[in-house]
Amino acid sequence: MLELFIANKNYSSWSLRPWVLMRELEIPFVEHLIPFSDNIKSNAFRNFSPSGKVPCLLDGDTVVWDSLAIAEYLAEQTPQVWPSDRPARAWARSAAAEMHSGFQALRSLCTMNCGARVRIDSYSSELKKDLDRLDELWLQSLDRFGGPYLAGQSFTATDAFFAPVAFRVQTYELAMAPEALAYSERLLALPSMQEWHNAALQESWRHEVYEEITRNAGTWLNDYREAGAGPR
Amino acid sequence: MLELFIANKNYSSWSLRPWVLMRELEIPFVEHLIPFSDNIKSNAFRNFSPSGKVPCLLDGDTVVWDSLAIAEYLAEQTPQVWPSDRPARAWARSAAAEMHSGFQALRSLCTMNCGARVRIDSYSSELKKDLDRLDELWLQSLDRFGGPYLAGQSFTATDAFFAPVAFRVQTYELAMAPEALAYSERLLALPSMQEWHNAALQESWRHEVYEEITRNAGTWLNDYREAGAGPR
Ligand SMILES: N[C@@H](CCC(=O)N[C@@H](CS)C(=O)NCC(=O)O)C(=O)O
Ligand SMILES: N[C@@H](CCC(=O)N[C@@H](CS)C(=O)NCC(=O)O)C(=O)O
Repeated sequence: MLELFIANKNYSSWSLRPWVLMRELEIPFVEHLIPFSDNIKSNAFRNFSPSGKVPCLLDGDTVVWDSLAIAEYLAEQTPQVWPSDRPARAWARSAAAEMHSGFQALRSLCTMNCGARVRIDSYSSELKKDLDRLDELWLQSLDRFGGPYLAGQSFTATDAFFAPVAFRVQTYELAMAPEALAYSERLLALPSMQEWHNAALQESWRHEVYEEITRNAGTWLNDYREAGAGPR
Repeated sequence: MLELFIANKNYSSWSLRPWVLMRELEIPFVEHLIPFSDNIKSNAFRNFSPSGKVPCLLDGDTVVWDSLAIAEYLAEQTPQVWPSDRPARAWARSAAAEMHSGFQALRSLCTMNCGARVRIDSYSSELKKDLDRLDELWLQSLDRFGGPYLAGQSFTATDAFFAPVAFRVQTYELAMAPEALAYSERLLALPSMQEWHNAALQESWRHEVYEEITRNAGTWLNDYREAGAGPR
């Protein structure tokens, strides 16, 4: 049985990617959630992940320690991970890989924080550039492959790679094109995404590093977590 | 015929990855080198690359606009891109993907600048952390698969992903473990790497943004480019 190591559902955007992919494609796995430690020196993730990062997939003796590598590993046995048409697959992989190494402003300024709600008062030019590119890429993809998912009728790894963006759009009420917001809503409505979100709200761990980024992003509006954090 | 769009050989670390992979695996392609523009607003890369970034591979109508997506696209027809053994392939993909989204300090502080030689006078803790992880990952890989390449006897995409690191090790005289330095030397000695390096030295374009990062990294030692830049 595949084992997937992840961190806090409220914060860990990288963990969400393979998790939602496996849930949507109905690939069975055992989940191991190891919360972020306050003490960075005693990185508990090193006990199972060579890079000291999550997500990390275990398949018997085989360790796969990066979200995109996990997607490709799964794709070898589950072709539905990518579209079946070769040009569509090239597009889908390019989009997922662009997310994997890009969108730095979005990732650092709007850190994933599922339970919080914040209004951004002013967008930096870097954040605007990332959101413009997201609008463009999503609209082009939906137009080219006909939706409702980025590569067409079925959920693929590309949607999994943008799933954390959907939570960010919700948390920070990100200003995006109507069709992009509609796609984001579709992701949020998936049973797997709802399951993740509900579990995130029940977590009691709070990480000041992440909470601070969220608070600094704008005006704090709400906190849907059990034991709410931050100003109200 | 495949067409590969790249930027300046002296600076463009992302371009090098698929280029060296295709050269080493003898996959024929036509190279289009579009130099970085001084004017960021008029991004010439947008004319062929959806993300406005290079590298970008064209295969007839199919556009593949990210280095890792290009590797996977090529792997579908050229299995030698990854190791043939499944656990080795999982390892190789994890390592390449770790590079693709990680090593931010190395990438931003020691920008690729093939022709320059600089001595780093003091290492930041972030840079040290990246170099420690490189040492660890390379040594583990060489040990596990027996070398001389990271995944064993043959050059694979994982070596291509670390090829820009070899130029950085050379430019900044990076302090690393002896076996890691030896691996880096092996990469530099490849005919394809020599070809790239020689072409880089002949380029006359200079980019102040990159030159400044290189100068700020430490003490300027040398410049092997035709029309040398920076302090001597
Ligand atoms: N490239 C990796 C990135 C993974 C990553 O950065 N994970 C974060 C959590 S979301 C982590 O483990 N951080 C712990 C650390 O950096 O010490 C992937 O795609 O899996
Ligand atoms: N994730 C991309 C990164 C590509 C990238 O950042 N390329 C740089 C050149 S080395 C670029 O095109 N920069 C131009 C820009 O950002 O406007 C890949 O792996 O191909």
